[in-house]
Amino acid sequence: MRRYTRYMPNEIKRIKEEVIKKEKPSKEDYELANSIFQMIKRNLERELRRCGVKAEVIMVGSIAKDTWLKSDKDLDIFVCFSPEVGKEFIKKRGVDIIRRSAPKPYEEHYAEHPYVRAKVKGFEVDIVPCFKVRSPREIISAVDRTPFHTEYILKNMKDYQKDEVRVLKRFLKGIGAYGAEIKIEGFSGYLVELLILEYGTFDNCLKNVSEWRPWKTVIDIEGYYSDPQRALKKFNSPLIVIDPVDPERNAAAAVSLGKMAEFIAASRLFLRRPSLKFFYPPDIRPITSEELKAKLRRRGTDILVIKFKPPQLPPDILWGQLKRSIKGIVKFLGVWDFSVLDYATWSNEKDKAMFMLELERAKLPHMKKHIGPPVTNIVHEERFLNKYLKAIMSGRQAVMAGPRIEDGRWVVYIKRKYDSVKELLKERIQEAGLSKDIALALSKNMEVLVNEEVCKLLSDLELNKALAEFLLKRPRWLMALSDGE
Amino acid sequence: MRRYTRYMPNEIKRIKEEVIKKEKPSKEDYELANSIFQMIKRNLERELRRCGVKAEVIMVGSIAKDTWLKSDKDLDIFVCFSPEVGKEFIKKRGVDIIRRSAPKPYEEHYAEHPYVRAKVKGFEVDIVPCFKVRSPREIISAVDRTPFHTEYILKNMKDYQKDEVRVLKRFLKGIGAYGAEIKIEGFSGYLVELLILEYGTFDNCLKNVSEWRPWKTVIDIEGYYSDPQRALKKFNSPLIVIDPVDPERNAAAAVSLGKMAEFIAASRLFLRRPSLKFFYPPDIRPITSEELKAKLRRRGTDILVIKFKPPQLPPDILWGQLKRSIKGIVKFLGVWDFSVLDYATWSNEKDKAMFMLELERAKLPHMKKHIGPPVTNIVHEERFLNKYLKAIMSGRQAVMAGPRIEDGRWVVYIKRKYDSVKELLKERIQEAGLSKDIALALSKNMEVLVNEEVCKLLSDLELNKALAEFLLKRPRWLMALSDGE
Repeated sequence: MRRYTRYMPNEIKRIKEEVIKKEKPSKEDYELANSIFQMIKRNLERELRRCGVKAEVIMVGSIAKDTWLKSDKDLDIFVCFSPEVGKEFIKKRGVDIIRRSAPKPYEEHYAEHPYVRAKVKGFEVDIVPCFKVRSPREIISAVDRTPFHTEYILKNMKDYQKDEVRVLKRFLKGIGAYGAEIKIEGFSGYLVELLILEYGTFDNCLKNVSEWRPWKTVIDIEGYYSDPQRALKKFNSPLIVIDPVDPERNAAAAVSLGKMAEFIAASRLFLRRPSLKFFYPPDIRPITSEELKAKLRRRGTDILVIKFKPPQLPPDILWGQLKRSIKGIVKFLGVWDFSVLDYATWSNEKDKAMFMLELERAKLPHMKKHIGPPVTNIVHEERFLNKYLKAIMSGRQAVMAGPRIEDGRWVVYIKRKYDSVKELLKERIQEAGLSKDIALALSKNMEVLVNEEVCKLLSDLELNKALAEFLLKRPRWLMALSDGE
Repeated sequence: MRRYTRYMPNEIKRIKEEVIKKEKPSKEDYELANSIFQMIKRNLERELRRCGVKAEVIMVGSIAKDTWLKSDKDLDIFVCFSPEVGKEFIKKRGVDIIRRSAPKPYEEHYAEHPYVRAKVKGFEVDIVPCFKVRSPREIISAVDRTPFHTEYILKNMKDYQKDEVRVLKRFLKGIGAYGAEIKIEGFSGYLVELLILEYGTFDNCLKNVSEWRPWKTVIDIEGYYSDPQRALKKFNSPLIVIDPVDPERNAAAAVSLGKMAEFIAASRLFLRRPSLKFFYPPDIRPITSEELKAKLRRRGTDILVIKFKPPQLPPDILWGQLKRSIKGIVKFLGVWDFSVLDYATWSNEKDKAMFMLELERAKLPHMKKHIGPPVTNIVHEERFLNKYLKAIMSGRQAVMAGPRIEDGRWVVYIKRKYDSVKELLKERIQEAGLSKDIALALSKNMEVLVNEEVCKLLSDLELNKALAEFLLKRPRWLMALSDGE
């Protein structure tokens, strides 16, 4: 590829080998995974027999496909029931059977059905009920597709590509784009596998990604669409990867424009300047109160943090609401003339959440220019003048200057209702287009901290790192580059 | 007129009578004007005879037309030469003859030709050389048209209308819209006469004006244009009044949109609430330092005054340059992110001038968000990252946060070059699109005053009033209304 004049295949090879060395599970890891699966399978089958219910217990996901990372020990076990038993049966009896045979202690989670999650010897084991259908076109719930994904990869992926998948997964993890959940809006494990199937190797994948164009990229391994335009129209996503087991599905639907763009940029930069730091970015350094104060002084901007206890919701729901709500707040502040330079959301998904904003200024001038009607609009002019002349005559301070005519329109200079962002939010945040549960959470407990008040959060290491990252505004993989190596 | 439910003809009649009482020149005024004219005419004719030059000495303008105000004692005397003598003759010998016969002391002024201005017994006497042409189509210099204007009004205006002209002139003077000079950009005396010819009376004129629409109004007394659309296209002015003596000329070409709009609004308000204060608005009350400081505190905005000695130029040239230059400054400040809430220019046309600006803030945050190229633009991305990553690595403070990707574009937070408007102007006002002579004047002497520093100007009554008016931002006729009567 002509453009990458500095493309260094040997350097990249060396880095890949190092990543594989760290991420490839050992023989012991495999044996352990397998023995856990066999144990759980035995228990499940015993319970199924006891209840007289027919179902097949299979392993799916990255361990089944041999594309897992040593650091990502997710074991996915599916219990495949016959479609004839029906959805209600699965939700009740099916899950009940799983509960009884699952390793204790376990948590219950809810996607389309309930399912069970247990920690076993370092593995996070999900035991999920699904329907065993004959083809992906007949799936009843979304999880029913997963066994077909596992099957497709096992059938089509060459052995050497499994390590390429590992390297690409770790790369995406390093740049913060691995995972299809709402919090990340990035690339799922299955999607990474498809990219390696399409492009063959990690190197070649990055070369191609670095020339991707959002809203114009279609990957269609099985060639279902003769015309990519049709796929672009049908799915209308920044990135489209047709699911080989289901032409009606975009396997990259979860990828946001932002995460796609970061992948593109990181790919290009990695090819120019390969570094292990893309895969293992340095940890965020916590910030001290003095550093925070110095930063604020230097910048001259104002930092605003809204801290609250998040509602108890499944992560995808919570993050959807957090993201929607902060956008609502930014828009709301704009309406009140506060201009937002940057914003971000953080939560530990348990008891702490923050909206972080950096503002041009947290206090506005009291006086605000208000543009009125054109002098030729008789009705509105009358209403305008009646209102403001009356205010002047009554000696109220609402009118600070004017009215006068500018460019043929009436203009008046009035007092702002809110010149402090803190007051505005304390009194009216409920008008800010928040999502339902966030609105409720904020109404119950919310701290609004401005500038130096934020210092008191720094003693909490989690909050501290989130704030430090927010202030830095630099992806960690880029920090690696700019810090020198 | 249905719309003016409060139209009070008797009230208006009373006010008009009062204005006429004040403004109609007395018998003695007329006799004095005439005797001055006769005296100057005699001297001019004697000198013309002595030089053997043929020319006619006539009185033109508002005194000749009997539409003058007692408070506006302008006596216009034209010396009409034969076109055959040529322009050069007029500029030299013609003006020489005038000089020799003019009352001493006199000043010389320059329009298209030089002319002479003298003060005689309270009258400002202009003695202007022109060509006596047979029709307005043959005019050689612009002043040659004036005798035809005088003739047209004398022939077409009914006697009672002359007082209507006086009332309308005084009304326009009161609202600050009387005069075609660049400083005012308003209505000339001749234009006022044409409006009275068109609408008959002052009252009817105001009723019509209050429904004028800028860019859509054509007045064509002689009916030269069968289709007003053609006139609108030809002249492309907010207001078009076809000159009855020259269909190719818009007698309202000098009227700005702003002054037209103020006339419209004032007309409507006067009809609703007639008051002598439209004609004689109260004087501006000077402001004290304490009041200025209190105002600044209340508003939370920042006041900026650029004080300088204006270049010695004829008023129209000076005001043209002042207006162009302040617009240049406002635009320049916008480019540097300083947002201007209001601006104005003041000068005594001699030794003092000011640009006055009210800013949202005179100091900006040091940190500024800078939007870079999209990640898909390979060339620009490389240039962008090279520049900013290098800055970070070299430890320079230019990059305060970022770079990062937002909505698919690179973004970086950098240090502003100028966060203080005062410094910016002191160092770089010459880049602000100033007109030539103003640029020179500012390079020689300029004071930039911010907020409380402005107080030191308040001891100068002229500057004080200009500042007080700028802060109030309310036309004086509207102040009259809002102060109660």
